[in-house]
Amino acid sequence: LATKLPKVGTTIFTVMSQLALEHQAVNLGQGFPDFDVPQRLVDALARAMAEGKNQYAPMTGVPALRQAIADKTEACYGYRPDADAEITVVSGASEAIFDAVQAVVRPGEEVVVLDPCYDSYEPAIDLAGGRAVHVPLDPVTFAVDWDRVRAAIGPNTRLLMVNSPHNPSGAMFDADDIARLSDIVESTGVWLLSDEVYEHIVFDGRRHESVLRYPQLRERAFVVSSFGKTYHCTGWKIGYCIAPPALSAELRKVHQYNSFCSFAPAQWAFAEMIRDEPEHYRQLGAFYQDKRDGFREQLSTTRLKPLPVPGGYFQLVDYSAVSDLDDAAFCRWLTMEKGVAAIPLSPFYESPPAGQRLARLCFAKNQATLDAAIKRLVSL
Amino acid sequence: LATKLPKVGTTIFTVMSQLALEHQAVNLGQGFPDFDVPQRLVDALARAMAEGKNQYAPMTGVPALRQAIADKTEACYGYRPDADAEITVVSGASEAIFDAVQAVVRPGEEVVVLDPCYDSYEPAIDLAGGRAVHVPLDPVTFAVDWDRVRAAIGPNTRLLMVNSPHNPSGAMFDADDIARLSDIVESTGVWLLSDEVYEHIVFDGRRHESVLRYPQLRERAFVVSSFGKTYHCTGWKIGYCIAPPALSAELRKVHQYNSFCSFAPAQWAFAEMIRDEPEHYRQLGAFYQDKRDGFREQLSTTRLKPLPVPGGYFQLVDYSAVSDLDDAAFCRWLTMEKGVAAIPLSPFYESPPAGQRLARLCFAKNQATLDAAIKRLVSL
Ligand SMILES: CSCCC(=O)C(=O)O
Ligand SMILES: CSCCC(=O)C(=O)O
Repeated sequence: LATKLPKVGTTIFTVMSQLALEHQAVNLGQGFPDFDVPQRLVDALARAMAEGKNQYAPMTGVPALRQAIADKTEACYGYRPDADAEITVVSGASEAIFDAVQAVVRPGEEVVVLDPCYDSYEPAIDLAGGRAVHVPLDPVTFAVDWDRVRAAIGPNTRLLMVNSPHNPSGAMFDADDIARLSDIVESTGVWLLSDEVYEHIVFDGRRHESVLRYPQLRERAFVVSSFGKTYHCTGWKIGYCIAPPALSAELRKVHQYNSFCSFAPAQWAFAEMIRDEPEHYRQLGAFYQDKRDGFREQLSTTRLKPLPVPGGYFQLVDYSAVSDLDDAAFCRWLTMEKGVAAIPLSPFYESPPAGQRLARLCFAKNQATLDAAIKRLVSL
Repeated sequence: LATKLPKVGTTIFTVMSQLALEHQAVNLGQGFPDFDVPQRLVDALARAMAEGKNQYAPMTGVPALRQAIADKTEACYGYRPDADAEITVVSGASEAIFDAVQAVVRPGEEVVVLDPCYDSYEPAIDLAGGRAVHVPLDPVTFAVDWDRVRAAIGPNTRLLMVNSPHNPSGAMFDADDIARLSDIVESTGVWLLSDEVYEHIVFDGRRHESVLRYPQLRERAFVVSSFGKTYHCTGWKIGYCIAPPALSAELRKVHQYNSFCSFAPAQWAFAEMIRDEPEHYRQLGAFYQDKRDGFREQLSTTRLKPLPVPGGYFQLVDYSAVSDLDDAAFCRWLTMEKGVAAIPLSPFYESPPAGQRLARLCFAKNQATLDAAIKRLVSL
């Protein structure tokens, strides 16, 4: 059996989590919180099960949840998507990205991605028979070079994939980025996929420049979000995609015959949570900002140099004062010898910048976990 | 935006469920139980949430669940799949089918399907750029004409998709079918996808001829099952695929970048349920046989003629004594005018047999629901 995906191995997240387990390392690798899901959400899910909401949800998602998402989107970004025609609940942001790519990319077409980028983008493109065209972000600031993006888009380009706040760097789009992106989308007619799973985890009073704020962008975009990130339940695998009716229709054709619908009781629980406790997502930035600030202060006692973190729950560190190993080797060494699992950046690139000495640490952790990690990192 | 899936509309299941809702019809259309999930499963899920099992499960599934599936498979079919290399937990049987097809079918390749077949098969094949080659089952007995299957397989055929117990007819493979299927698989080298989601819902002492019983078949097969069907929770969307290591590896490459993993707390709950209450799946056939027998007796008071139901939870009825409408029109009329939603068979076919007058009724319902339906059906 010849493989259709020759480049695909086990994800770096799984590899490092397994290594962490084997070596009893503190796991700051794979991105997931080690604290509890809000109790209200757990209670609401249990209630939904008890009420018998255990059969197929509508393919597009439970109506109450799509309404709640429409309300929340309007409250956050001043734009109210149509709950029936523009919102689709799916089994995690991963499925949204996968479905969107399968829906619009045909064999031989190109998709522009910005490196470093999340590791699911390219396999989804490859599976559709497309080709990922990689444009590197600035290796220090992770800013987008929009001239290079524009130059990468040709007659054969179907889709441009962007991500703000950005994984792994935490970089965020500002108004200038939106202006440049708008020019490109308008002049080229490319479709857009905007991965905004960290939309509520933004710091220092920054504004999340959701593509949904801008008519010229949202009318050509799949906008993807994730309840896993917002509600501390990465293992519940529910996310959603907001897109104009024509794009939503195509995404749904794939979703309908892929997972069809997502775990129904959780959909009711999210509907209730979003509606009744908007403080949760409103305060999520402040919640994580405390963690980020505390963790950065702790890191200042180590020889790891933290880069700025505008958003998201990852801290990049420059380890060049500690080691000359490349990032993959360094992260393995850190996990196995020093007992702290981290994620190297090179797997997020087609061609990693030569000599880059960066590792990614997840600070979505209890203080005790961060303390245990720092205790090991000070000895580096 | 030109569609990649021009043939895809809304599934007949969604269409009929919506129509049922609008017309307050008793919904015997879309296949789902209207009775409760076993309490133990609900409790175990709640416990898993309380224990904090809310973050990503391993991509292949929670190890305890894969072990439980291996044990159960051995107990049922005398073959123990390797829990690490051969079992993958996915977001419903639909995702398993979708992933398997995407994993092995390339543009221009053919996949043989047996009509009537479940409506997700062909869109999955189309999306991969493949072509579904339809071989009709016997229009009365729904038996497979293996000579026609053999003749449909050519040098370009990648996959053969089979389904026993069969949706919509309930027909089941017997030992002769397995012998013929084995010949075909061995002589052509085609890969097999065996959709066995109704594996435990078999009647009258019949034996479910799982492909897993037969080395010559299982070594070339994706075997798909569904907890939704076995545990009365179609909205939980957890299923699994058993396949030899090389096939599992390919399926996992797709799954890893599709939904990545499935709702984690339910995985723990199923692990416990399978291990501690094997009576549930062992008695499932008897449980549904009672429903089937009762429903058929009730149907004898109507002018609908029930066909035999060897397995599954659907009853086909011949309505030709009642109406000359084609099946789509009849099912709409039955839903809107008579208040009972049913599923026509024509959407399961490339070319429906001329003059077929069959409708599918789901009897996975409380007695009160079946009573309410019969009350309306006697007046036909
Ligand atoms: C699906 S595991 C990856 C989790 C994640 O988003 C990350 O670590 O970047
Ligand atoms: C995903 S809705 C279809 C449910 C089902 O399996 C059926 O009704 O045949």
